[in-house]
Amino acid sequence: MPPFTFIFLSFALENFKTKNTTKKLLINKQIGVLGAGSFGTAVSNLIALNSKVVLYTRSDTTYQQITNTRSFNGIPIHENVEVTLDLNYLAKSCDLIFPIVPSRNFRKAIRELAPYLTPQHILIHGTKGFDIVGEDENESLEKLAITRENLKTMSEVILEETNVLRIGCLSGPNLASEIIAGQPTAAVVASRFKEVVTLGKSALNSKLFHVFGSNEILGAELAGALKNIVAIGSGMLSGLGLGKNIQAMLITRGLTEMIYFGKAMGVTSAPFLGTAGIGDLVATATSKDSRNFTFGYRLAKGESKNEIIESMSEVAEGVRTLRIARQLAKYYKLHVPITMTLYACVYDGFDLKKALDYLIQYPYDIDVDFI
Amino acid sequence: MPPFTFIFLSFALENFKTKNTTKKLLINKQIGVLGAGSFGTAVSNLIALNSKVVLYTRSDTTYQQITNTRSFNGIPIHENVEVTLDLNYLAKSCDLIFPIVPSRNFRKAIRELAPYLTPQHILIHGTKGFDIVGEDENESLEKLAITRENLKTMSEVILEETNVLRIGCLSGPNLASEIIAGQPTAAVVASRFKEVVTLGKSALNSKLFHVFGSNEILGAELAGALKNIVAIGSGMLSGLGLGKNIQAMLITRGLTEMIYFGKAMGVTSAPFLGTAGIGDLVATATSKDSRNFTFGYRLAKGESKNEIIESMSEVAEGVRTLRIARQLAKYYKLHVPITMTLYACVYDGFDLKKALDYLIQYPYDIDVDFI
Repeated sequence: MPPFTFIFLSFALENFKTKNTTKKLLINKQIGVLGAGSFGTAVSNLIALNSKVVLYTRSDTTYQQITNTRSFNGIPIHENVEVTLDLNYLAKSCDLIFPIVPSRNFRKAIRELAPYLTPQHILIHGTKGFDIVGEDENESLEKLAITRENLKTMSEVILEETNVLRIGCLSGPNLASEIIAGQPTAAVVASRFKEVVTLGKSALNSKLFHVFGSNEILGAELAGALKNIVAIGSGMLSGLGLGKNIQAMLITRGLTEMIYFGKAMGVTSAPFLGTAGIGDLVATATSKDSRNFTFGYRLAKGESKNEIIESMSEVAEGVRTLRIARQLAKYYKLHVPITMTLYACVYDGFDLKKALDYLIQYPYDIDVDFI
Repeated sequence: MPPFTFIFLSFALENFKTKNTTKKLLINKQIGVLGAGSFGTAVSNLIALNSKVVLYTRSDTTYQQITNTRSFNGIPIHENVEVTLDLNYLAKSCDLIFPIVPSRNFRKAIRELAPYLTPQHILIHGTKGFDIVGEDENESLEKLAITRENLKTMSEVILEETNVLRIGCLSGPNLASEIIAGQPTAAVVASRFKEVVTLGKSALNSKLFHVFGSNEILGAELAGALKNIVAIGSGMLSGLGLGKNIQAMLITRGLTEMIYFGKAMGVTSAPFLGTAGIGDLVATATSKDSRNFTFGYRLAKGESKNEIIESMSEVAEGVRTLRIARQLAKYYKLHVPITMTLYACVYDGFDLKKALDYLIQYPYDIDVDFI
């Protein structure tokens, strides 16, 4: 006879299953995804478990590939996913759209979509990086004095560029390769609007994907962007042949620096300590499938920054975020030695082993001072 | 010409180096370590970088091996480490002693040492588990109703069994195999007494080992013990062939449960969010060198609990802590689904894949509710 705990868990599990299958979908229309990169297609496949999906790509090649082969770069695309080249069609057929575009191109993509949007639309983005106002006109980010005025999160870009008000952000430990492989995970949909959270959860929730809700969107966006810096550092440590102890310390102290940035920008530590913070950070900074980890790893192995960037099929957002974060740290006068040292390693050729010595011997005041 | 950041970091690094070498040792006598397991020997080698060490072992074989070969199980023992079988000699020659003994034998070991201790002694333990009063007389931990009354941390055991007052705890991401391999990391010395923290830091600090101080000893002890449960779960996920996303979620939610235990016992969340918490958790739960991770991994691969335990050369503390934590959760009426489900998997044969389904679909209320 199975013991009590076993019976209890079995019963509870059945109970949840029943609840789940009887759950009514809140969205009857199709759901849109803007951007057919690896994460965009992974999210499309996830949503396709619950609803019809319209996936927009600007690339003819991608459109042809998905339409003709029902797969993209070897990844099968769910039959519920329709691919389109038409922004008007995307906006007309979907009230809820997930923009998932690299941060550097995000404003441009949203600007192109904007004429087709109405205040009835809901946008939940899945991009983990920053927009810098005025960047187009300047060759180098370093020449811009970055302040809170010209640093924008993706939700702020949507707010500026469209007439949409109900905006959310999707974040969490979501390595695309694992989602595509059908592995389980969780995420956060963060928004100031409860209905955005509810709709986002309803669109994405499945037995493989647990979606938490949160109203701290700025925190979720900052955590998602800043954690890529730590992932670069973690890749470097791995490239130097180092192990789990020091990786865990980098993650711990890196999280602390992320929280310092958040505090400076008026965010509580809570979003950094959950799924969109620790969750995303740990996954990205310990996985060889993470682009940012890989960037750091290859840098430590002796390749140059430009070699690595040119050979990567998709952007490692952290390389750009690092430049922005360094300037932001100056603006807010933050003590963030990991961020500053990683910048020196990536952009100024500072020796990685010296950097490690420096950080180990850095006179940190206190272990935890952000509560 | 190197850019400014480079110069700054180089200068700062040199500055720290100078400071470090001129630092005066606060301890002139030898420093003791009680217990020559893998972590005990690793700590001995660390301290030996700064001071002479007396390492106590109760095993004749170990004593002979270290004395004759200057190594232990293939690990070279630093020339500053003297090994002894004599508790009286350990206590006479060392004011500061680090007891590092499995939790199940901790009280017995301290009881044996007690007659040789004086109130001048300082004890900083490095054991990550609990003591249960009355366990000796009961075959099964499950037959005892565990409460805060009969659950003791290692520092509480020292307080009960000796006349020593100045007690501390060493915790953090300290996989012994990596420390032995000369890899860098960090740790926390936690104590209510500032001088214990200062002495502990002075004994252990080196260019490979950054030691933080903390006054939250109970939090550090709870974090160190409870994280082993999460490490078992993480090993299971890995044994099931799952990846980094879900591992990161287990770590995130596992940390939340650790904090719930802490709150129930009157501890703030701070110690869980630093080196002794996230740091230790991430290292242990992502490393194949961790005994607790390995236990979960092999269980998921189909081996029985007893088979695994019998074949391990050292104790996986989490297997015992899991039994204690489950009872403690009942006592405090905590909602800790990961702890309860892992217990069902390890002790009641609950199916691991069903457990995973259950946890993914568990109706968690909020992502972060412990701040």
